Amino acid sequence: MTPSARERAVDALLDELGADLVLTDPDSLQAYRRDRAEDPDAGTPIAVVRATSTEHVQSTMRIAAREGVGVVPRGAGSGLSGGSSAVEGAIMISLERMREITVDPALQMAVVQPGAFNTEVKAAAAEHGLWYPPDPSSQAFCSIGGNIATNAGGLCCVKYGVTGDYVLGLTVVLADGRAVKLGGPRLKDVAGLSLTKLFVGSEGTLGVVTEAVLRLVPAQRTPTTLVAMFPTVEGAVRAVVDIKAAMRPSMLEFMDRVTINAVEDMMRMELDRTAAAMLIVQSDEPTEVAAAQIEDIERTCGLHGASEVYATSDPDESEALIEARRQAVPAIERRGALLLEDVGVPLTRLGDLIDGMRAIAESRGVEIAVVAHAGDGNTHPLIVLDRTDAQQRANADLAFGEVMALAIELGGTITGEHGVGRLKQPWLADYLGDDVLELNQRIKQALDPQGILNPGAVFGPL
Amino acid sequence: MTPSARERAVDALLDELGADLVLTDPDSLQAYRRDRAEDPDAGTPIAVVRATSTEHVQSTMRIAAREGVGVVPRGAGSGLSGGSSAVEGAIMISLERMREITVDPALQMAVVQPGAFNTEVKAAAAEHGLWYPPDPSSQAFCSIGGNIATNAGGLCCVKYGVTGDYVLGLTVVLADGRAVKLGGPRLKDVAGLSLTKLFVGSEGTLGVVTEAVLRLVPAQRTPTTLVAMFPTVEGAVRAVVDIKAAMRPSMLEFMDRVTINAVEDMMRMELDRTAAAMLIVQSDEPTEVAAAQIEDIERTCGLHGASEVYATSDPDESEALIEARRQAVPAIERRGALLLEDVGVPLTRLGDLIDGMRAIAESRGVEIAVVAHAGDGNTHPLIVLDRTDAQQRANADLAFGEVMALAIELGGTITGEHGVGRLKQPWLADYLGDDVLELNQRIKQALDPQGILNPGAVFGPL
Repeated sequence: MTPSARERAVDALLDELGADLVLTDPDSLQAYRRDRAEDPDAGTPIAVVRATSTEHVQSTMRIAAREGVGVVPRGAGSGLSGGSSAVEGAIMISLERMREITVDPALQMAVVQPGAFNTEVKAAAAEHGLWYPPDPSSQAFCSIGGNIATNAGGLCCVKYGVTGDYVLGLTVVLADGRAVKLGGPRLKDVAGLSLTKLFVGSEGTLGVVTEAVLRLVPAQRTPTTLVAMFPTVEGAVRAVVDIKAAMRPSMLEFMDRVTINAVEDMMRMELDRTAAAMLIVQSDEPTEVAAAQIEDIERTCGLHGASEVYATSDPDESEALIEARRQAVPAIERRGALLLEDVGVPLTRLGDLIDGMRAIAESRGVEIAVVAHAGDGNTHPLIVLDRTDAQQRANADLAFGEVMALAIELGGTITGEHGVGRLKQPWLADYLGDDVLELNQRIKQALDPQGILNPGAVFGPL
Repeated sequence: MTPSARERAVDALLDELGADLVLTDPDSLQAYRRDRAEDPDAGTPIAVVRATSTEHVQSTMRIAAREGVGVVPRGAGSGLSGGSSAVEGAIMISLERMREITVDPALQMAVVQPGAFNTEVKAAAAEHGLWYPPDPSSQAFCSIGGNIATNAGGLCCVKYGVTGDYVLGLTVVLADGRAVKLGGPRLKDVAGLSLTKLFVGSEGTLGVVTEAVLRLVPAQRTPTTLVAMFPTVEGAVRAVVDIKAAMRPSMLEFMDRVTINAVEDMMRMELDRTAAAMLIVQSDEPTEVAAAQIEDIERTCGLHGASEVYATSDPDESEALIEARRQAVPAIERRGALLLEDVGVPLTRLGDLIDGMRAIAESRGVEIAVVAHAGDGNTHPLIVLDRTDAQQRANADLAFGEVMALAIELGGTITGEHGVGRLKQPWLADYLGDDVLELNQRIKQALDPQGILNPGAVFGPL
């Protein structure tokens, strides 16, 4: 019997890269099946390649292209949309061993391999008095490669922008195994199409990023942090809109009652469990300006009925308050399995979005906790469910879709920063419309005609 | 005799859009042949469509696609790389009549038609206490559509980024006449490929932008401006690198001796004509921080041998100093025709670039004036020539190419903000390399298979 394409691919990988780099034992294959989205439909890879160089990724892609076998790139596996779920019969390329970081302080740039964690890049920059701003809540366990793949956001985006704003150059392995350098250590460059920007956020569907040139900025000033508790969601949302209109805060986060209670259950911070909403706001302006801004914010929160406002410029205390926000997802995870949403709307529709989500939760009989990068209009409704209860699973799935439909209706997006991955793929067409979807597909087709790069992610079956 | 495709296209345009929108008289066709690059090889359009709506652009593209005739989009005609030079036998679409601007102060966004001038957008934002940062020196006579087409930069980019950083959404008419909306009034959106970013900087080769959603920010604080004169270029360049390493100035511009003298000839500002270089630096931090930064900058300039340093926080005086920089190109234009360069390098190679350009000027016997967005490593060497002198023309052309080759050798780019257009097209392959060029072409091919969008620009003959 002649070996299948899959068998030939695995043999070629072992032959070319060796058993140290290529895992094929069932336990390993099992360990790499899922990312943090815990996709129940994840497949099993035929092999896991733990690349330590661009060349290893090139070899893998060449073999995959020759045999027509799919490849799923994976960083730290912290993705929330299933963009690095394994695909049945495909190769998994893990970039977890590629973690080098080189900072050039004169250029204020870092050259980073994709497996480095976000906080590792921040720490390397900090050694030179520099700062890499993007800060997903998962910063301690998410990789830069994944951040680039999803154009990840975070808490400071409201002032400092998203991952893509800091990516100046990329080394990418294409579908046919060629490696190309896009952009580079130049702050401005308009020669040819903006391919660096195109690859950011492409979720491994156009190529595999093996190195990035990141822009760094001078260290952030110590911020002042304000926490405000509100008896109504409406008041908190109105405060958000007014704060945004008056200044450029360096953080503007929202947590609803369910979230406040989940965090309080886990962290015991003496948060007011009866409050309907909590805002966490920061200013990182110079001392006097920050003081004036915080005073303004305090007044604005008061005007919209805040029951309690507390501000601190103590770094440790600030950090503790923000940690409450960062731990929101793990805290809610204690209540059950989660379907993590990531819808965003134009800021002025934020109230309508949160109201609508409350209605969906009621009508479907599910619990939805809402945390939000409120200043960006980007919300994370977390649908809590017991996966062993079929009825709840079905209701949660319905609510998941209805939240996206609501966001679209309000002029918003189905994903602000987590990516489409596999979980949101069925809703992409509704959001983009046929013409824009087709435009996406034409580019995918042009760059990956065999459809072997992260098959099924973003675009679905081609 | 049957009419040619061109004749049929003109007839269809007149038929569908009427003679008010479609100019075909020889004087008009002549008037739309060239942009500010004054390309001697510009062709003559078969018709000029002065669209006033997206639908007009759609009609034009549908007719062009049907007849296989090229289309060149044009804004205010201020392009410096010949990206909107007319192509023989192609239709010119002028967006100059589409100038509507609508500001949404609550969302801090503006919806803008492509023909609006950059300063008009700034003025509309300012009415609401908001700011649209990108500020090409041509801001008073360049259009937003052109800014988007070239991903234009300017003086404040060093702190505030380029045009693309402020484009949230685009309405684009595709090669087949369909209009699509990419992105929109959402600060974060990762659903599907980053097509908005791809179209920014694509110089009309992938579609025609008919509307943009722009991000606005709170008004800039009144900046403090410092001017420093240096007896050596080396000293000025070292000061630039040190300033950049210590802080984030809101402007960091460079002018060489030729430029200083040309500006002084035109504006009579009592600039020191013997100085080898001049820096113009701004800080827009709050008063005390700005004062400390300006003091630092002063010290740094002194350390690197500045002969004269002058600082002012008077807005009118600041504006007058910056106007000296903005008028540099017109001032040098008085010395002869110009070949405008736009090369950029990693900041630490700026000195090597300027040295090398001096050597090229000497060896080719041409005058090269250098102005630079020094903080970004982006320079504008202006090659002065007498177009009636064939030998000078030949030498200038050689120098033009040698400057780009030098930039590439130093790890830089052939264009930081003006675009490739037609003038720099022959050098794109050298800069990108075959693989990246081919990647560009695959996307062009996928989106414009007939090659009718701005034929010859960026990609050259396909």
